[in-house]
Amino acid sequence: MLGGEQTLAMAKSDRPRRVGVVLFDRFELLDVFGPLELLGVLPDRFELNLIGPTSGPVRSAQGPEVVAANSYQQAPAPDIALIPGGMGTRGLVENGEFLAWLAGWAGTAEFVTSVCTGSGVLAAAGLLDGHRATSNKQAFAWAQSQGPKVEWVRQARWVADRNRWTSSGVAAGMDMTLALIGHVHGDELAARVADGVEYDWHRDSTWDPFAVKHGLV
Amino acid sequence: MLGGEQTLAMAKSDRPRRVGVVLFDRFELLDVFGPLELLGVLPDRFELNLIGPTSGPVRSAQGPEVVAANSYQQAPAPDIALIPGGMGTRGLVENGEFLAWLAGWAGTAEFVTSVCTGSGVLAAAGLLDGHRATSNKQAFAWAQSQGPKVEWVRQARWVADRNRWTSSGVAAGMDMTLALIGHVHGDELAARVADGVEYDWHRDSTWDPFAVKHGLV
Repeated sequence: MLGGEQTLAMAKSDRPRRVGVVLFDRFELLDVFGPLELLGVLPDRFELNLIGPTSGPVRSAQGPEVVAANSYQQAPAPDIALIPGGMGTRGLVENGEFLAWLAGWAGTAEFVTSVCTGSGVLAAAGLLDGHRATSNKQAFAWAQSQGPKVEWVRQARWVADRNRWTSSGVAAGMDMTLALIGHVHGDELAARVADGVEYDWHRDSTWDPFAVKHGLV
Repeated sequence: MLGGEQTLAMAKSDRPRRVGVVLFDRFELLDVFGPLELLGVLPDRFELNLIGPTSGPVRSAQGPEVVAANSYQQAPAPDIALIPGGMGTRGLVENGEFLAWLAGWAGTAEFVTSVCTGSGVLAAAGLLDGHRATSNKQAFAWAQSQGPKVEWVRQARWVADRNRWTSSGVAAGMDMTLALIGHVHGDELAARVADGVEYDWHRDSTWDPFAVKHGLV
């Protein structure tokens, strides 16, 4: 049994991958906690590290505050960097100091990932240059404007191009995360995680009715 | 436009409903933040109030800490009470003082809701007596054991019986929340919320493949 309330004990051949999650003022709640729910039921495989401008509470776009364990400057190097979206992204792309830090911190990660308009932030930091990527369907033009050297994909649930994984808006981050779990640990385990948390996993990265609903295609 | 990054401004005939969310040590992340994402994009309609044993950080089952704005004792009366699941529920049902507080605090709410094993806690507090209810499919027997006077429904995405709304495991809380938004503000608004956050809303409360996958039916 494996689920939202069970964790999986398994022989470890490797240390868990460290997932570094970049919190910032007005981040989108589900962009963070959809992926962390799915990764968090596999503590032998993934270690969660939330970071913020300073350690301590960071306010979400919806109001609730979440505690950052480390400041950006003290954050350990991630194996998987995760950048959420949310209205706070609009200020981040104007912040040269932050973008320089992000490029250095995330740039050497095994996987650089984003949910929603987080891809606009990655693009502004130059981390998507020469890569295919997607973003939130209602803020697509904004994300696109952050990365002229990015090949933006309008209709996709998520896009995985080499080690850059970007998802569409909010809930799409859960499908991308399951695909990433499948990529590194096998689809059978990813399916067990999805079934455990009773999530209807969309396995097809090209499934994207929202691109149509929001007039992008 | 309405979505994860937009909020809806509308003429208010009423004050927003206060959503009181009961945090406790080892609550399940998505049980809380799936619903709060969906309610949180409608700040004119729903006001979020996270409460905990004391005000301040509360640790989730997956590790990240979330800030409770009020202690249980200081918590304002909710219009909608939301009880998440998570491994921490196993201790709560043994805590008579907590259950007595919960019965009083939630008992007069317009809606009493739960996600996952939160229904076991509601049952232990007597709040589901004489009602139909459901729970997490892998912890169903445990939830059931908390409420002998509850009519437990094994196969359901969620169950709404008068003002008691209980959902199945983890991700099911999002479908229930959208149904509740639809119930009070119309399905058209609920559908716009779902489309905005790019979530594939299951509108049918009897849709539950996980009851089959986990051997409940």
